[in-house]
Amino acid sequence: MPRVSDITPSWIAVDWGTSRLRTWAIGADGGILASACSDKGMRALDPSGFEPALMDLVGGWLPASGVSPMEVIICGMAGARGGWREASYRSVPCRAIDDGEMLRFSAADRRLNVNIIAGLSQSDPPDVMRGEETQLAGFVALHGLSDAVVCLPGTHSKWVRLDGGNVASFQTVMTGELFDLLANQSVLRQPTASGANDNAAFLAAVDTMVARRQDLVSSLFSVRAATVLTGGDADTVLSRLSGLLIGAELAATRMFWNENDVHLVGGDISARYAEALSHVGAAVFVEDAIEMTLTGLRAAHAILIERAA
Amino acid sequence: MPRVSDITPSWIAVDWGTSRLRTWAIGADGGILASACSDKGMRALDPSGFEPALMDLVGGWLPASGVSPMEVIICGMAGARGGWREASYRSVPCRAIDDGEMLRFSAADRRLNVNIIAGLSQSDPPDVMRGEETQLAGFVALHGLSDAVVCLPGTHSKWVRLDGGNVASFQTVMTGELFDLLANQSVLRQPTASGANDNAAFLAAVDTMVARRQDLVSSLFSVRAATVLTGGDADTVLSRLSGLLIGAELAATRMFWNENDVHLVGGDISARYAEALSHVGAAVFVEDAIEMTLTGLRAAHAILIERAA
Repeated sequence: MPRVSDITPSWIAVDWGTSRLRTWAIGADGGILASACSDKGMRALDPSGFEPALMDLVGGWLPASGVSPMEVIICGMAGARGGWREASYRSVPCRAIDDGEMLRFSAADRRLNVNIIAGLSQSDPPDVMRGEETQLAGFVALHGLSDAVVCLPGTHSKWVRLDGGNVASFQTVMTGELFDLLANQSVLRQPTASGANDNAAFLAAVDTMVARRQDLVSSLFSVRAATVLTGGDADTVLSRLSGLLIGAELAATRMFWNENDVHLVGGDISARYAEALSHVGAAVFVEDAIEMTLTGLRAAHAILIERAA
Repeated sequence: MPRVSDITPSWIAVDWGTSRLRTWAIGADGGILASACSDKGMRALDPSGFEPALMDLVGGWLPASGVSPMEVIICGMAGARGGWREASYRSVPCRAIDDGEMLRFSAADRRLNVNIIAGLSQSDPPDVMRGEETQLAGFVALHGLSDAVVCLPGTHSKWVRLDGGNVASFQTVMTGELFDLLANQSVLRQPTASGANDNAAFLAAVDTMVARRQDLVSSLFSVRAATVLTGGDADTVLSRLSGLLIGAELAATRMFWNENDVHLVGGDISARYAEALSHVGAAVFVEDAIEMTLTGLRAAHAILIERAA
């Protein structure tokens, strides 16, 4: 790996999430020359904070003034309302990104041309995504699968049906956010938990939601009551809570995974989803989320170059 | 109303909730001589803080030392684990309180005899209540109804089936706590909301859950997405959220209210529950929650006196 100041990238790839900012310096051959990340996700920033947060990571990769500006391709929350600048949404059904719609503007530092990839929207039921469309484009490019079900678990999990290479429909479930609120701030909170997974408790809770089709809202307090009445290890309690919430997500998205292979594109939490989906009988393939993101960003950059030519 | 220092109550009634402490000085004829309340609910206290919090409100009602101690009858969270002292649970099916099981001890101030009414528990599905059993005893005493469905809406709503005068079964739903977390701390939060109810939005969301039987977890993010795509008043967004959560509660408790009259015992939120229940076709009777509590506490005091005689 060269010293940062020696790097001369061809362009810069950026994944701007709610809680993390990830950047890559991409060489002329498409390879990664360097990468950097910080906790300057959208949540930590107001609109004026985006350019400085980006410059902190990529400033050393930029050429001297006076040459042509560096193209920066960004997916994710930089384009949300309250982000750097609001980018549009494209309506499904549509290609994930390959019509190349991007919000393009010069940064205050004229060495940077910013390109923010459009999100996707759905009118009925209303839904939106930003960032996942780029991973979906990467998924299609890498696997050549034009019909598939993709689950992107996380703070706001997305379930997506790809049909003929189009994003046909999708569904967001706030599972990660509900877990964080309930596990840290509700009567179910467990300050002494270590984070270890009690897999038997987790899967039993998945069954409560998927096989026994219980209601989530009436099952949540049972977790608390069982602890009061019979005791319970803090990690077991949180594993049960996680199983109820992921189980409720699976019960609500049955039309996606029932009788379909599921491709999981996500971080560490993918392991729990793989466990739960296998348990309810779905065939699961765990994909490399960062590879999907980078492949999608490369596809967006290729479209940009092609149009400029 | 006499000056507080002139009051000589026969006994003191206490409702110790999670967020509020309410006390009443009761005369020899059972009438209310004075009342006082504070925000020293269980949440604000550790076990050593309960007696001082109580003395702040009732100290002026106590006789001089050397006479027989004042009986204090307490329902609610003072008897929870982490409360003043942990009181037992009685298993349903059973009478609400009229076997008179109470945790009895002398306070550090010997002028006080403390009596904490036992809560109720259910083994399958696991569930617990503290405080509501006293309101249920009051309900039975006031109405003479031995078969009824009672809903006590709140932070943790309780649905109760009374059968032959016994509490036969019950179900807790964390609706109020979920609303508070989502409305104040999630991506659905609306800092500019005034608190006004948009009743059309509220009832449409109730229908989404009850008539259309949609899943709560997949409907929550739609509230956010609809706002992003088509705009939306902050009060409308929170009314929708409230309708989804109360609707999810009604969907999960259909076996209680379907083809039964429902007696609502709760605070201001009862109006929303009455609206939602009427909308889905249930017959609703709104009861006075404080009257139920006081009647139940009086019944517990009568049992105490009878046993001492």
